[in-house]
Amino acid sequence: MKEIKIGLIGFGNIGTGVVNALNRNGELIEKRIGAKLLLKRIADVDTKRKRNADYDPSILTADADAILADPEIQIIIELVGGLEPARTFVEKALRAGKHVVTANKAMLANFGADLWQVAAQHNVALLFEASVGGGIPIIRALELGLTANRLLSVYGIVNGTCNYILTNMAEEHKAFDTVLAEAQAHGYAEPDPTFDIEGYDTAHKTAILASLAFQQDVRYADVYVEGITRIKPVDIEYARELGYTIKLLGIAKCDPRDGRVEVRVHPTLVGNSSLLAHVSGVYNGIMTVGDLVGRSMFYGRGAGPEPTASAVLSDVMAAAEAIAAGRSVSEHRLRIEPGQRHLKPIEELETAYYIRLVAEDRPGVMAKIGTVLGEHDISIGSMIQRGRHDSGRAEIIIVTHTAREKNLQAAITEIAKLPTTFEKPFVLRVEEEL
Amino acid sequence: MKEIKIGLIGFGNIGTGVVNALNRNGELIEKRIGAKLLLKRIADVDTKRKRNADYDPSILTADADAILADPEIQIIIELVGGLEPARTFVEKALRAGKHVVTANKAMLANFGADLWQVAAQHNVALLFEASVGGGIPIIRALELGLTANRLLSVYGIVNGTCNYILTNMAEEHKAFDTVLAEAQAHGYAEPDPTFDIEGYDTAHKTAILASLAFQQDVRYADVYVEGITRIKPVDIEYARELGYTIKLLGIAKCDPRDGRVEVRVHPTLVGNSSLLAHVSGVYNGIMTVGDLVGRSMFYGRGAGPEPTASAVLSDVMAAAEAIAAGRSVSEHRLRIEPGQRHLKPIEELETAYYIRLVAEDRPGVMAKIGTVLGEHDISIGSMIQRGRHDSGRAEIIIVTHTAREKNLQAAITEIAKLPTTFEKPFVLRVEEEL
Repeated sequence: MKEIKIGLIGFGNIGTGVVNALNRNGELIEKRIGAKLLLKRIADVDTKRKRNADYDPSILTADADAILADPEIQIIIELVGGLEPARTFVEKALRAGKHVVTANKAMLANFGADLWQVAAQHNVALLFEASVGGGIPIIRALELGLTANRLLSVYGIVNGTCNYILTNMAEEHKAFDTVLAEAQAHGYAEPDPTFDIEGYDTAHKTAILASLAFQQDVRYADVYVEGITRIKPVDIEYARELGYTIKLLGIAKCDPRDGRVEVRVHPTLVGNSSLLAHVSGVYNGIMTVGDLVGRSMFYGRGAGPEPTASAVLSDVMAAAEAIAAGRSVSEHRLRIEPGQRHLKPIEELETAYYIRLVAEDRPGVMAKIGTVLGEHDISIGSMIQRGRHDSGRAEIIIVTHTAREKNLQAAITEIAKLPTTFEKPFVLRVEEEL
Repeated sequence: MKEIKIGLIGFGNIGTGVVNALNRNGELIEKRIGAKLLLKRIADVDTKRKRNADYDPSILTADADAILADPEIQIIIELVGGLEPARTFVEKALRAGKHVVTANKAMLANFGADLWQVAAQHNVALLFEASVGGGIPIIRALELGLTANRLLSVYGIVNGTCNYILTNMAEEHKAFDTVLAEAQAHGYAEPDPTFDIEGYDTAHKTAILASLAFQQDVRYADVYVEGITRIKPVDIEYARELGYTIKLLGIAKCDPRDGRVEVRVHPTLVGNSSLLAHVSGVYNGIMTVGDLVGRSMFYGRGAGPEPTASAVLSDVMAAAEAIAAGRSVSEHRLRIEPGQRHLKPIEELETAYYIRLVAEDRPGVMAKIGTVLGEHDISIGSMIQRGRHDSGRAEIIIVTHTAREKNLQAAITEIAKLPTTFEKPFVLRVEEEL
């Protein structure tokens, strides 16, 4: 049986998970691909820390370049994360004719198309199942399973931290800050949670999904992003009353008329009849709509060492199988030409909106707000008005019918300036047909 | 660009869907696989009926053997369905060195391992993404996406007709017969619905899922099957009251201690916290549990010409891509040796149970039932007792803790014989941890 030698760069939490998974399921993997996998070397800046894994310490080095230069190593697993030096490592590996398996969404969302091109030029594969949705095989679904479809949209919950926070706010009726602190205590949120709660992580993943789904070079900088930090328990309550659940969604749609792609990340009111509304806790769920297959959803654990190892090893197996058979890897089929993208700006978005505002609680106020909305071509779908006891103020919740983002923003600015309105109205987007 | 010639056998509803899909997305498919697909010939016993598709009538023949003997044709799509002559066609095609793509779950659930072996011997592929879950790429998930995992279970809703009926019974509070008649009127159920409502279709699909998940030769005859015809609206109501939804599930589990596989199809009470409880209408949802990845779910349209065409064409593309590259097909990786299976009989099942019975409404009756259950090592988890007004009878609903099937059946037989019990108690199985 052929032995395929692997190099691992990045021996943190996820790297440790991969080593453990390889130890645990090595025999089964061997049987399935008809080749033996040997982890020959591991590189990490920290060669001292004891990892909770069974490995030969002599294979650990601080010198990633030594691994990249080892002609015996045919597959590199990159788990360094971040842009540099990860990008340089990956490019070097590809140029040296090695297959690369990565979980690095930031790198792919910024340089994916460039790196995939380098890989193609060197007749090797840059595989990335672990970069989106952890253990959910969403990349293979887009590349292989749904590949006969013209995809119209892909959207979903791809950040477990945010979903944990929103689920807990809803179930425990707690404030954002309280739940965030609890999530940090449980290890579901980082000490610095910015990257997750501001939506940046979701934006990286959404850019990758959009690139594959529509075969356009969509990058992180192309994604409109809003995080979840401004959501209050009342929003969750009102949403529930109106039949919605609030989720942080990454949304990518391709207009079949002109091929333009909209890519956005923001907290979204999802109708409770959608399966996405029932994706709870740290789980991820990704919906796709294809012209033949219609709606599909892929659900599972979106993070953690073991689910990520599941995805990483599925890629390693694909590469190893191809090497053993003396052929090229067939798992990354969708070619994306660098620079080729056709985007739709957020101002042109058409969707429904949720508006929460505080206004004077007296006759005529609501009529005035309705007039402003009407003047901007926005019609009201449903409304809740609650007097705040004895304050002379009322909280007003409006869900609009489909409107234009540009008009909505103009209307909100105008409403904020009304002498009868207090605070700037808070706006969330609503997806009626998910 | 290389042109790959295809033969289609079976030109019914699904065949027509495939032809239409190929016409619609041919250009996109061509770009994705770098090869041109040409549907060279179609065989069907009915060459007269006008199909709602754009095709050259001169390629249609009643002689399937002519297509199987055509050396130019490298891929056969088998959409005849049923056991024979489909099985013979497929075997001939494989022996002639052609790749075969099929949606035929009955054939695979009866002869799959034999046919996959024939395919391997002739260095061709027998692909079957369309056989389970329609357009849901569940086969690729098992073969490729989750392939680094030792799978522990796979279970789900794989029959849209049953799910439509159960969903409508629950939502509209209607009886089984009423909803079945409506489903037939809408075309969601066949004129003879036996195959669906008795669970046979689900059993075929579950056998295929079990075979792949555990790499054992699990066949249709190995599956324990109960259909949905005896479910009454009261069961659905009581289940709801207790926090469950009733779904027809195909369930396959592999005991990690001894490798024994249980495969069963029956209506099941699913806790509402499970995503499966929210898979409604004609949609399918398949859960998997892997040792690394944990729980995943795959959701989508499980039937219909377009979703099925989506799956069929994904397989055709895989085969065509391999032909164009002069390599073998890598999509069917999991080898299943004919005859190799290690089954766990239904009597040894351990699960929770829902019991509905009618008994005399007087003191001591419930105690007697509890005693019988206790004597068979069955403890009660929750209970509802409702007096039927003025009849002197009470309806009693019991949900047990985990018990042994054998004990449960013995207890039920004994309870049915009690002078205070009317009718044979009705039993459903409960899955607490889905």
